[in-house]
Amino acid sequence: MTTSHRPPLSPTPRSTLNRSKERGRADRAELDAVLDAGLICHLGVLLGGTPVVIPTVYGRDGDTLYLHGSTGAGNLRAAVTSDISVAVTHVDGLVYARSAMHFSMNFRSAVIRGRAIEITDPDHRLHGLRVVVEHSAPGAWTRVRAPDKKEMAATMVLALDLTEASVKIRTGGPKDDPADIETGGTWAGVLPLRQVWDTPIPSEDLEPGIETPTDVLTRAATVIATH
Amino acid sequence: MTTSHRPPLSPTPRSTLNRSKERGRADRAELDAVLDAGLICHLGVLLGGTPVVIPTVYGRDGDTLYLHGSTGAGNLRAAVTSDISVAVTHVDGLVYARSAMHFSMNFRSAVIRGRAIEITDPDHRLHGLRVVVEHSAPGAWTRVRAPDKKEMAATMVLALDLTEASVKIRTGGPKDDPADIETGGTWAGVLPLRQVWDTPIPSEDLEPGIETPTDVLTRAATVIATH
Repeated sequence: MTTSHRPPLSPTPRSTLNRSKERGRADRAELDAVLDAGLICHLGVLLGGTPVVIPTVYGRDGDTLYLHGSTGAGNLRAAVTSDISVAVTHVDGLVYARSAMHFSMNFRSAVIRGRAIEITDPDHRLHGLRVVVEHSAPGAWTRVRAPDKKEMAATMVLALDLTEASVKIRTGGPKDDPADIETGGTWAGVLPLRQVWDTPIPSEDLEPGIETPTDVLTRAATVIATH
Repeated sequence: MTTSHRPPLSPTPRSTLNRSKERGRADRAELDAVLDAGLICHLGVLLGGTPVVIPTVYGRDGDTLYLHGSTGAGNLRAAVTSDISVAVTHVDGLVYARSAMHFSMNFRSAVIRGRAIEITDPDHRLHGLRVVVEHSAPGAWTRVRAPDKKEMAATMVLALDLTEASVKIRTGGPKDDPADIETGGTWAGVLPLRQVWDTPIPSEDLEPGIETPTDVLTRAATVIATH
């Protein structure tokens, strides 16, 4: 995938950042990095006229975000009848300041808005599911049993265009008021936070003699990006 | 705070779980635990008639969730003009199954819906801000400079009742189809994930001789709960 011909982010007024402009990023590579480092997104849909936010898995392929779920899930049905929003956020640390109102967090976040479409083409549906599964478990798709007809029939696959997206990133130490720095005497700094994988745990019903596969070991050895 | 007289969760039809009922929890203590372990929430508000999901900090005091933000933030202004939704999610591991459609994640999540109200009473506003700051940085409030009049005037404090809330928790190994287990030959299990604090980093503009305070050291030594 090349990014050279992709449009910049925030091409619509409603995705243009109004606050903390210095934290906004207009680089598609940064959007991709935030999305690719995430395991779940928070999906906002309209249900009965009011928003509901649901954690769910996702995958990215180029400028398309894929979501999936049960055909019986009202939330996902609602996701194709009006615009939705998807947010992916990483917390990288707590920022301790010299004054309460300057406490903050270091984070990376992407917020997307748009209208999702339900994918109906069988090959495209299978592709979308593979993108979602391999987003969190790279290399696992070809090692495990593929979806059968019954599973495919029970699954909705949605695609959301990533055109209307904004990225915010905060890094570094506290931004205290000069007067508080001058007064002195108060500790300020960052308490960094990161995610780590632990050792894979075989399923209790796994038969003896099955080694942990390479894709799982590789995933477990992956350092989860911080910023 | 006692929980014995608090109502059970999900007292309204729209917060009653329709899917995966076995993952739903009706215990207020579990709601509190999910919320208290989180650092950020994802806030869903209506903007221009469609939902937008925004990561933000929060704090809990009893059955009230507090949010805060700049008075200039359109998102927070929108949060008091229609119902909102707040979700807090922890990912505890990837669940590798024997078939693609049984891949899952171990997680704990809380989803709240309701109408937030803007707090106007000065003492209550200050209390709400303290709850938010101390949620992520316990013990820091009394060590740092309190908000001044200008900062208070620039800050909105919102309160959201936790009555309409649902909690979902998934733990354990994959739930594979019996036929796939019988076929055998495919590894299945869990890759656990957790968050860890790293060593506190003093701010570059910190004067010499200020030791890292106890509340920061205690926070850094806190094991972030998994399930």
